[in-house]
Amino acid sequence: MKLSNRILDMQFSPIRKLAPYATEAKKRGTKVYHLNIGQPDVLTPDPFFKAIANFKEDVLKYTESQGMDALQESFIEYYKKWGTEFTKDQLYITNGGSEAIMLVFQAICDAGDEIVVPEPFYTNYTGFAQIAGAKTVPFLTKAEEGFHLPSKEEIVSKISEKTKAIMISNPGNPTGVVYTKEELRMLGDIVKEHDLFLIADEVYREFVYDGLQYTSTLTMTDILDRLIVVDSISKRYSACGARIGLVASKNKDLMFNIMKLCQTRLCVPTVEQIGAAALKDTPESYFTETRAEYQRRRDIMMEGLENIPGVICKKPTGAFYIVAKLPVEDAEDFAKYLLTDFSHDGKTVMVAPAGGFYGTPGRGKDEIRLSYCLNCESLKDAMNLLKIAIEEYKKTH
Amino acid sequence: MKLSNRILDMQFSPIRKLAPYATEAKKRGTKVYHLNIGQPDVLTPDPFFKAIANFKEDVLKYTESQGMDALQESFIEYYKKWGTEFTKDQLYITNGGSEAIMLVFQAICDAGDEIVVPEPFYTNYTGFAQIAGAKTVPFLTKAEEGFHLPSKEEIVSKISEKTKAIMISNPGNPTGVVYTKEELRMLGDIVKEHDLFLIADEVYREFVYDGLQYTSTLTMTDILDRLIVVDSISKRYSACGARIGLVASKNKDLMFNIMKLCQTRLCVPTVEQIGAAALKDTPESYFTETRAEYQRRRDIMMEGLENIPGVICKKPTGAFYIVAKLPVEDAEDFAKYLLTDFSHDGKTVMVAPAGGFYGTPGRGKDEIRLSYCLNCESLKDAMNLLKIAIEEYKKTH
Repeated sequence: MKLSNRILDMQFSPIRKLAPYATEAKKRGTKVYHLNIGQPDVLTPDPFFKAIANFKEDVLKYTESQGMDALQESFIEYYKKWGTEFTKDQLYITNGGSEAIMLVFQAICDAGDEIVVPEPFYTNYTGFAQIAGAKTVPFLTKAEEGFHLPSKEEIVSKISEKTKAIMISNPGNPTGVVYTKEELRMLGDIVKEHDLFLIADEVYREFVYDGLQYTSTLTMTDILDRLIVVDSISKRYSACGARIGLVASKNKDLMFNIMKLCQTRLCVPTVEQIGAAALKDTPESYFTETRAEYQRRRDIMMEGLENIPGVICKKPTGAFYIVAKLPVEDAEDFAKYLLTDFSHDGKTVMVAPAGGFYGTPGRGKDEIRLSYCLNCESLKDAMNLLKIAIEEYKKTH
Repeated sequence: MKLSNRILDMQFSPIRKLAPYATEAKKRGTKVYHLNIGQPDVLTPDPFFKAIANFKEDVLKYTESQGMDALQESFIEYYKKWGTEFTKDQLYITNGGSEAIMLVFQAICDAGDEIVVPEPFYTNYTGFAQIAGAKTVPFLTKAEEGFHLPSKEEIVSKISEKTKAIMISNPGNPTGVVYTKEELRMLGDIVKEHDLFLIADEVYREFVYDGLQYTSTLTMTDILDRLIVVDSISKRYSACGARIGLVASKNKDLMFNIMKLCQTRLCVPTVEQIGAAALKDTPESYFTETRAEYQRRRDIMMEGLENIPGVICKKPTGAFYIVAKLPVEDAEDFAKYLLTDFSHDGKTVMVAPAGGFYGTPGRGKDEIRLSYCLNCESLKDAMNLLKIAIEEYKKTH
């Protein structure tokens, strides 16, 4: 009755590791500002709730394995606005972006296969790979360079016979990096030259600041046969709980075979699909306002970080995360200290140690990931607390 | 850019293979009675729709990876009625019974490991195993014996060093068999003697007829540390589209590790959990009436089958399926004939060839699976059509 090596090798979420200390701090009456999680506080658009309030069927039936027609169509319309025409056999609805990634890894990886990713990266990529018997192979990107890509040679040096794909998140979680056209082109060239898939996690596509023009991997028309896009409504519409995502590709063979996996799990929940399909009625102003709000928050957070001596961090231009190098040796110890030893005016902050976002052991030990999913006023207060905490911590460490 | 061997080895749903022929038949104006699918026509209880109609939150947030408190609690209450006390760390909410089975296979199987199952069995078990790099190893049960279990020796002969578990569906899909206490005890003894898990798919627990007392595997208190139950509301509450299931076990190590998989995919959709938690308000009469209705339908279907010369089939006592041996050589060819060549008074029936439910190639070639998810009148008509179709088919085959 031994469990699988696969599951024994897997880690618990490093983001959730500090949760018990936060609970304890709250029990002591300390207010905890959560800079550690990517749960947006922006309102979920009304059309979602209106659609499900009016939903009534005699029998709540299975839906199509590829997703309900109306939802597939709403995504096809959405992608048209981004300049890409998908058909229904090129775009399947999934249980969040998470299932989309799992389906892709299961479809392209056997035991021992490798996915090359820039680190730091969204930790669950490793979990999804492990479920498929595969592993993530990271190449380094640096705080000093705003986590932009290294040279082509450095990336290529990580490619082996076992490599099946390069995977990126753009805009990046946890770094907030937005890759330039030239960086994407370099990746496009690499996957062509080495006959690999390019998997692009573009769930933060709308979250790009400073008037920057976002370039989707979908603009590289010469690699569409090897491009796989994973997407989700979780962040775009502040609807994480809906667990509605999708996998899209123009590679016929891939999508034909992924349908087997979709059929095996039968279908995605009906009611959430009904709600998600109605989100197409969200006015464009929703995104303009959300983007403006997040840009304000990013600026507040950056200002706060720049006010802390010794912090290394370039202003990111996307998503709602910042990875910052702190003037401490062990960011995990500092993150724990924030919850167990520190408080100021009865308040503290919770941050995510960035070590968990690196695939290479030991890397990112002095870094944290901050999420700016808090209103501006709280954010100012939180950044002030962080500054004081670092000063206090450095006195004793 | 090769796809994984895993996915290339997987099959498309054998149940859905005939769908294009059915579509063609309907285009020709032929009415098709669907005896091929297990989509219940019973009404989904109102509390589900009431709960979601009243659901409104500012932000549709992630929920706990193990499921929402209220839903875990409603299942804990449900199991109390069946005599088993679960705690929240012994019962996690999943995306349908499908995800529950996937999580279990991923947690106990590495590449090459084996799951022993009685055949015919729910075909997706093989898909779930393949996703985990494992395979199903079948032992035979027979129409002539009502698909009850063979001798202990025959089952044990399928156990190898690679075997991690025995898996059963009870009541059985596709056979409708309900195992006796003695049969379960035999399985309990085998898993103890060979140090295996027993995985029990008990999603049809309420669907047992003729006043028979249902015995759950959970009554075998001496094997609770090696018992894993997968469950779902899909059939119980006619809520297939909700995709709400669960995995439950008293094995601490297993559940502790399965939490890693739950965290990796973050959580199950919120709205469907809200609806599912409200189903605890369904009156007991719902089940009494549903059971009585299905029993009537089973009787009509059995009568219909007994009226067809050469059919071999024992009256099943559970679920809503019957596997019958037909007096034809190739049931798949016959099933296709029903849709492409046959019609009577502008009507025909669609059945599922049972070959797809066997793991051993060639087995079940003269068998079909019928589902009695149709009202009594339609069912009578459908069974009459089946009788005529067999007569016609035999004239030319």
